[in-house]
Amino acid sequence: MKRIAVLTSGGDAPGMNACIRAIVLTAHRNQIEVIGYRHGYNGLLKREYQPLHPGDVVNIIQRGGTILRSARCPEFVSTESAERAAQNLNDMHIDALLIIGGNGSFMGAEHLGRHWDGQIITLPGTIDNDITGTDGTIGYYTAIDTALEAIDKVRDTADAFERIFLIEVMGRHAGFIGLNAAIGSGAEQMLLPELVDDGNAIDLKQIMRHVKVTREKRGMCSYIIVITENLYPGGANALATKLTEEMNVDCKPVILGYIQRGGSPVSMDRILATKLGAYAVEAARDGKHLIMIGEQNHNVVEIPLEQTRSSKKPLDPYLVEIQQDFFDLVKNPV
Amino acid sequence: MKRIAVLTSGGDAPGMNACIRAIVLTAHRNQIEVIGYRHGYNGLLKREYQPLHPGDVVNIIQRGGTILRSARCPEFVSTESAERAAQNLNDMHIDALLIIGGNGSFMGAEHLGRHWDGQIITLPGTIDNDITGTDGTIGYYTAIDTALEAIDKVRDTADAFERIFLIEVMGRHAGFIGLNAAIGSGAEQMLLPELVDDGNAIDLKQIMRHVKVTREKRGMCSYIIVITENLYPGGANALATKLTEEMNVDCKPVILGYIQRGGSPVSMDRILATKLGAYAVEAARDGKHLIMIGEQNHNVVEIPLEQTRSSKKPLDPYLVEIQQDFFDLVKNPV
Amino acid sequence: MKRIAVLTSGGDAPGMNACIRAIVLTAHRNQIEVIGYRHGYNGLLKREYQPLHPGDVVNIIQRGGTILRSARCPEFVSTESAERAAQNLNDMHIDALLIIGGNGSFMGAEHLGRHWDGQIITLPGTIDNDITGTDGTIGYYTAIDTALEAIDKVRDTADAFERIFLIEVMGRHAGFIGLNAAIGSGAEQMLLPELVDDGNAIDLKQIMRHVKVTREKRGMCSYIIVITENLYPGGANALATKLTEEMNVDCKPVILGYIQRGGSPVSMDRILATKLGAYAVEAARDGKHLIMIGEQNHNVVEIPLEQTRSSKKPLDPYLVEIQQDFFDLVKNPV
Amino acid sequence: MKRIAVLTSGGDAPGMNACIRAIVLTAHRNQIEVIGYRHGYNGLLKREYQPLHPGDVVNIIQRGGTILRSARCPEFVSTESAERAAQNLNDMHIDALLIIGGNGSFMGAEHLGRHWDGQIITLPGTIDNDITGTDGTIGYYTAIDTALEAIDKVRDTADAFERIFLIEVMGRHAGFIGLNAAIGSGAEQMLLPELVDDGNAIDLKQIMRHVKVTREKRGMCSYIIVITENLYPGGANALATKLTEEMNVDCKPVILGYIQRGGSPVSMDRILATKLGAYAVEAARDGKHLIMIGEQNHNVVEIPLEQTRSSKKPLDPYLVEIQQDFFDLVKNPV
Repeated sequence: MKRIAVLTSGGDAPGMNACIRAIVLTAHRNQIEVIGYRHGYNGLLKREYQPLHPGDVVNIIQRGGTILRSARCPEFVSTESAERAAQNLNDMHIDALLIIGGNGSFMGAEHLGRHWDGQIITLPGTIDNDITGTDGTIGYYTAIDTALEAIDKVRDTADAFERIFLIEVMGRHAGFIGLNAAIGSGAEQMLLPELVDDGNAIDLKQIMRHVKVTREKRGMCSYIIVITENLYPGGANALATKLTEEMNVDCKPVILGYIQRGGSPVSMDRILATKLGAYAVEAARDGKHLIMIGEQNHNVVEIPLEQTRSSKKPLDPYLVEIQQDFFDLVKNPV
Repeated sequence: MKRIAVLTSGGDAPGMNACIRAIVLTAHRNQIEVIGYRHGYNGLLKREYQPLHPGDVVNIIQRGGTILRSARCPEFVSTESAERAAQNLNDMHIDALLIIGGNGSFMGAEHLGRHWDGQIITLPGTIDNDITGTDGTIGYYTAIDTALEAIDKVRDTADAFERIFLIEVMGRHAGFIGLNAAIGSGAEQMLLPELVDDGNAIDLKQIMRHVKVTREKRGMCSYIIVITENLYPGGANALATKLTEEMNVDCKPVILGYIQRGGSPVSMDRILATKLGAYAVEAARDGKHLIMIGEQNHNVVEIPLEQTRSSKKPLDPYLVEIQQDFFDLVKNPV
Repeated sequence: MKRIAVLTSGGDAPGMNACIRAIVLTAHRNQIEVIGYRHGYNGLLKREYQPLHPGDVVNIIQRGGTILRSARCPEFVSTESAERAAQNLNDMHIDALLIIGGNGSFMGAEHLGRHWDGQIITLPGTIDNDITGTDGTIGYYTAIDTALEAIDKVRDTADAFERIFLIEVMGRHAGFIGLNAAIGSGAEQMLLPELVDDGNAIDLKQIMRHVKVTREKRGMCSYIIVITENLYPGGANALATKLTEEMNVDCKPVILGYIQRGGSPVSMDRILATKLGAYAVEAARDGKHLIMIGEQNHNVVEIPLEQTRSSKKPLDPYLVEIQQDFFDLVKNPV
Repeated sequence: MKRIAVLTSGGDAPGMNACIRAIVLTAHRNQIEVIGYRHGYNGLLKREYQPLHPGDVVNIIQRGGTILRSARCPEFVSTESAERAAQNLNDMHIDALLIIGGNGSFMGAEHLGRHWDGQIITLPGTIDNDITGTDGTIGYYTAIDTALEAIDKVRDTADAFERIFLIEVMGRHAGFIGLNAAIGSGAEQMLLPELVDDGNAIDLKQIMRHVKVTREKRGMCSYIIVITENLYPGGANALATKLTEEMNVDCKPVILGYIQRGGSPVSMDRILATKLGAYAVEAARDGKHLIMIGEQNHNVVEIPLEQTRSSKKPLDPYLVEIQQDFFDLVKNPV
């Protein structure tokens, strides 16, 4: 093996730089050259790349974002684009392509795999943690801590005013950030996609009853609801307005939004990214193909790429139970 | 002087607890008793209070929010409510009342002053810094740093995607947080109430032209606009949608909202709160009345209460000029 | 089961409060009363305790330290002290005692178990992570992130001056913090107890050769060594002086010390503490005895107490290998 | 004016990069070229420099350290070195040299001024704030907040163990960081160079009496002493050992050390750095010479360089008084 390429694709996630660094350093000690494509699959199509030497990854382990830039690339579904990418990779004599990204990026990887003979290895980089086959994803742990820090701040005001706050966190299809942010912040209620029956709307009456009874039992105090994005039409803003009207108490929304994506990665993400990045190069060197490098039970594992979306990764049921039991109106009599 | 009372009113601000602590410790060494009314003026009306001894303020200097709780009190404009408050204060043998809050709270203080014989002293506690007569207000410095931390994180994603972000910060009528957050984050543009002509709408065309030309000159890169709340109909969400449509590039909104109010106060707020709190007790002891304790040029000052809203406090003109010049399209030719 | 007691013992660790909260909330929903002994085993001997209701644990999940205080209790090895503790527990009608602490506290638990008929359940609370039978310990994850934040700051100066820094982290007998801090910070070298042969001194010549060659290869740049406490006679201060003398370049020591123990717990510690605390009450309710509640591969487990020190918990060998390979002088030729 | 140069010298300070950025952007809009000398005065002697364009200072406003590197340069006292520097500056057609640093760097500036005809303008960049003529210095505000964050963490453990901690902060000759860290953390005692009589040793008996009486009055609780470096022979380590022996209670030292220098600058430092940097270029453009650009009462000022060390800048006497009064044993009877 002489030369590999790496790209970051999809939403950026803290730790992507730590992963790039590990790839470059591991390749270096295996005498493998590395080039980085810029702007995700777009760079692959436009031959936009840069060489990556150990000197290029000094002091990036602690940086959010990605030095290779990222982008969506909607056109990367056509046969023509995959063939062009394959041609470009061959022209550059790339033996293996390493792709750091989420589910969308992995579909791109499989698409490319149908048109290119080289090895393709993916690494899970997304704050959403919605990738099957790995316990965590690069960026996920930082996103939880960022959400927690923000909710801790909101709790100050919530307490000062004995007020209801509705905190919207990221996680369109998965409640991983939401569950952990709710547990970690001691939130009184959480609304996650996994807990809302398919086709059913959020049960406003039940939410309001919980707020009312909990505050009566405890005495008036702050009350925080964690909700994932896209779960209620109009988002947390609309739901807060609705609750304020219906309950006749002030309910304020806070949309954490893009601040959850950025920031210096926490240790968990730096270390996970480093492990996966180092292993990915070793797997490439050993001829592996169409796999994702993930982590299960603290061990690095290789997962066939098509299995990463074969099933939905479940939330930790014990965590869900704890969070619900703590504030269960029946189980917690006065 | 035997006994004073303190209350926190209006929006909570980081450093209010540090101020309460300084009041209690200073009163203690002057052999003055302190009681704290809870929930702002509401506690004054409902006789809801607690004694405050030095032991009650241990380990609160670093806490956000306010241990005395806060609240709005819309009814505190009637003669009846002021008379009831006066009666309650007299029944408790309060010699002086210290009020930590913003402009609304100060109006309540003046209202009470027309119906009560005791001394009234106010302390500026608001993240907005929109109080004349003091260079800074308790909570203002923390709010700037909280905004900056969030914008730093957004910049990571903005860079990774070379994207436009619109960050909405607090400051309904004043651009202090907005100006400092823009300068401190290296934002490419800022939209503040002081810089938008009265009656004029925000000039969308000018904004778009600036984005376009700046990105052309520099090469495509991230671009951050800081905007204060309530400046555009529908807020940053509506403006981002508008810009996305008009410019045909992705423009994402981030509403910092209530996370700007909370958090452990930064040193500037802890120290300002401590200075003002200590001085307020000394001023009370010395018989002062209807004044605000503020800070000008690093010295503690006493300001007649009615002067605190006699004029609008201006932004630092040199800071405004710097921020505008850095990104002035004419002054910065290619 | 009617009543349980909890105490925190040994060095405090971020997350202990989150654990106390989970214990109280879980006991409440099982209609079990909770009392908390203060100052570790000392409170057990002196009958110093407080009732713990759900209202007492509001807003403590994010606090460092422990609301029950902690202390060392050297006298808790005598038969007399264990018998006194047993008597006090019986007088209070305690069915089960939950002990949050480290190895020393666990020995106290076993000692008490030989003299008391009630159930004893321990929870691993220590920043050192040196407890067998659980993948992580409460406080460990925060300590790593605290160390990383500090090293990130030192790296700024190290880079500015192209200087060598020696960072001393906690971990008297175990290199868990050291290894993760080294990986996470991109440190150029790490000195851990597990990697130094028994009876052998640290090999100064090898350290200096690594510094010299690495800097020559890369060009002059910053160089960070992470070392655990007590590994070199006189600590990092003495080693820095020695290296400065021998190498004739400035080598500065930084002792992180007690700042690693405190601070608001990161999400990992809040969640681990919550899981273990909730489970411990369920285990007590179910009659379990002389076990530690730990976590293995993301599942809560029960471990016989005597097994928690039956063997030494190893470092992750792949992480050790990565860290060493990145800076291996032979494997990384110019 | 066609071309200016900038260098950073002496200990690095957070905000130096923000200052470099402001210099480059302001020069650009005035059509002035900028080059940066690397490694302080050493780069001036060795002709080690780099051009600085607006594109080079993107995304550095939030970075600690200095992109120009820094270094001590002991040889820069000789006539020969100043003449060589002057020659190098002339060869490069530099009209003005901007120097960001502390007192030592300013002496170098004056020395150079005696041998070079170009304009010399200095900017105060040091965490110690020990420069006369400016209210604050670049880096000072971040250092205070960094110290505070660390002390807040130590307070957690101090409370948990009701223990005495001795925190050593930077400030060899000036107690600015110490005073503000003590006030901001609610420290029970502070030991600063300004408060220790010349030639007198620290009064150990008085310290111990204060600890003893304060803890008796309040009940046993944590007790924090802030001390500046070099104030006690052997530093905080030696003093802690001494106090532990003499008082027979555990007293633990924490040396904050180099973590105070690094980290992302807080808003105050970013804004101060930006103001001073922008103004310095305008002053250069206007022909100013041998001045320091400082800030007094929120306004940018020009100070003749020789006045910056004409007298010692005093601590804020009111802050000193408050801190001492809060814990005065006589003024605070039980």
